[in-house]
Amino acid sequence: MSIRLRIDLGYHGAQFSGWGIQPHHRTVQGELERALSIALRIAPKVTRTLVAGRTDAGVHAVGQVCHIQLPEGYELTSRAQSQLRARVQGALAAKDVVIHDIQIAPEGFDARFSALSREYQYRIADGRALKNPLHASFTTWSSYTLDDSVMDELGVALCGLHDWAAFCRPRVGATTIRELQHYRWKRDRDGVLVARVIADAFCHSMVRSLVGAAVAVGRGKLGLKDAIALREGKERTSEFPTMPAHGLSLTKVSYPKDSQMATRASLARNRRAADPD
Amino acid sequence: MSIRLRIDLGYHGAQFSGWGIQPHHRTVQGELERALSIALRIAPKVTRTLVAGRTDAGVHAVGQVCHIQLPEGYELTSRAQSQLRARVQGALAAKDVVIHDIQIAPEGFDARFSALSREYQYRIADGRALKNPLHASFTTWSSYTLDDSVMDELGVALCGLHDWAAFCRPRVGATTIRELQHYRWKRDRDGVLVARVIADAFCHSMVRSLVGAAVAVGRGKLGLKDAIALREGKERTSEFPTMPAHGLSLTKVSYPKDSQMATRASLARNRRAADPD
Repeated sequence: MSIRLRIDLGYHGAQFSGWGIQPHHRTVQGELERALSIALRIAPKVTRTLVAGRTDAGVHAVGQVCHIQLPEGYELTSRAQSQLRARVQGALAAKDVVIHDIQIAPEGFDARFSALSREYQYRIADGRALKNPLHASFTTWSSYTLDDSVMDELGVALCGLHDWAAFCRPRVGATTIRELQHYRWKRDRDGVLVARVIADAFCHSMVRSLVGAAVAVGRGKLGLKDAIALREGKERTSEFPTMPAHGLSLTKVSYPKDSQMATRASLARNRRAADPD
Repeated sequence: MSIRLRIDLGYHGAQFSGWGIQPHHRTVQGELERALSIALRIAPKVTRTLVAGRTDAGVHAVGQVCHIQLPEGYELTSRAQSQLRARVQGALAAKDVVIHDIQIAPEGFDARFSALSREYQYRIADGRALKNPLHASFTTWSSYTLDDSVMDELGVALCGLHDWAAFCRPRVGATTIRELQHYRWKRDRDGVLVARVIADAFCHSMVRSLVGAAVAVGRGKLGLKDAIALREGKERTSEFPTMPAHGLSLTKVSYPKDSQMATRASLARNRRAADPD
């Protein structure tokens, strides 16, 4: 049985064409796999990473998780293991990817399929908020003043196990049924509107659509009941915008306790193998 | 009597050679004065801004304040005044300067000399803290684990009215006597060490030296008593580093009530006319 590594990392999304590797584009997966091949001294492309949340171009991550399966027979001394995080960080030239931790994964762990839930944050500085230039690269600015209480009301009302087709960019053969577990809006100390959104998994562009619907409601362009009704339409709509990528960050991926990793992975794999997360 | 405007603004310092205008360099003052001359339709360089805290290259500001004296006879309709903030913001091409507010200044107001105090923040993510890639451009990263309680103790012990020559880059004819009113270290939710430093005014590179002394103490390279004793030396020392600019932000400038603006300005002007702030 070869070794699987769990890698906890974060990145500033501005200079990346998203997570997934693409020829001629700078991607997080591309940069990370290059650094891993240097630090582990394995040939490039021998082994690939698999990630919990495949973020789009411009989307950030603070608490991303991926795994990599080392080649059969690869030996990792405990000394090499203890230095691995620093070596991979060192092999990454730029400062926009941070390796938080690298550990040998527990039996049955799969970064994508063992995950119980993904948590995202979306930040909007509206007309009432302080526009902090230090936060501009991860906060969307709006000149409107948004009604945070009705936006929060919408978030709470939308939660549950539903078909999110109206909020997703469709992919052939992929289910759009997801459990939205938490969706709340709050203002922080600077008055910035911060959404916390948790689901078992997300379909493509779902968070940014959920935020777009809340902004339409918060501006008074769309009624609360109408916004909820759109979900029942089960077709992608133009009633609200998909919000810009740079306001969005993947903040956390949750896993079950070690003994449940394999069971959880096999359940999720059967249901969502063809889907994004 | 011509009109004086108070301008509240912030900026991300990374792409600026500091506040003060310099030929062939991108400076905040240079960008702002260009935008003001466009928005106010006055010829460039006719009138200059004066600022509360002249930040160095790479230093950020969230709560900076400056003023500009409009030319004699310049008339500002209330309509033009209400649109001014948006017009100046629009004339600034880049997103790294934010105009929070522009108002007609109260009688006797001087952005620099009426100020009662300046408040700065310094952020260090050490070995115990989460290194958040979204915050990398305004947080210094350290691989050491720093003792926050002894750093905080140093901060408290250093406060008071003293000669800060040991902590300042000297300037001919400028006093280095300042009242350090507050200097505390705390960890935030991510474990990031955040210093809050307040003084009536600061001499050149003083905050970054105060932070350097705390880091030397926090790493155990310098004893608490020795660090305090350095202040008495009244000569610039190499016992601690001057910390990098990008961890530093000017967060707030405090002013007296309107009726005290002129008195405060004339007091401070007499004492510090030749000094930086």
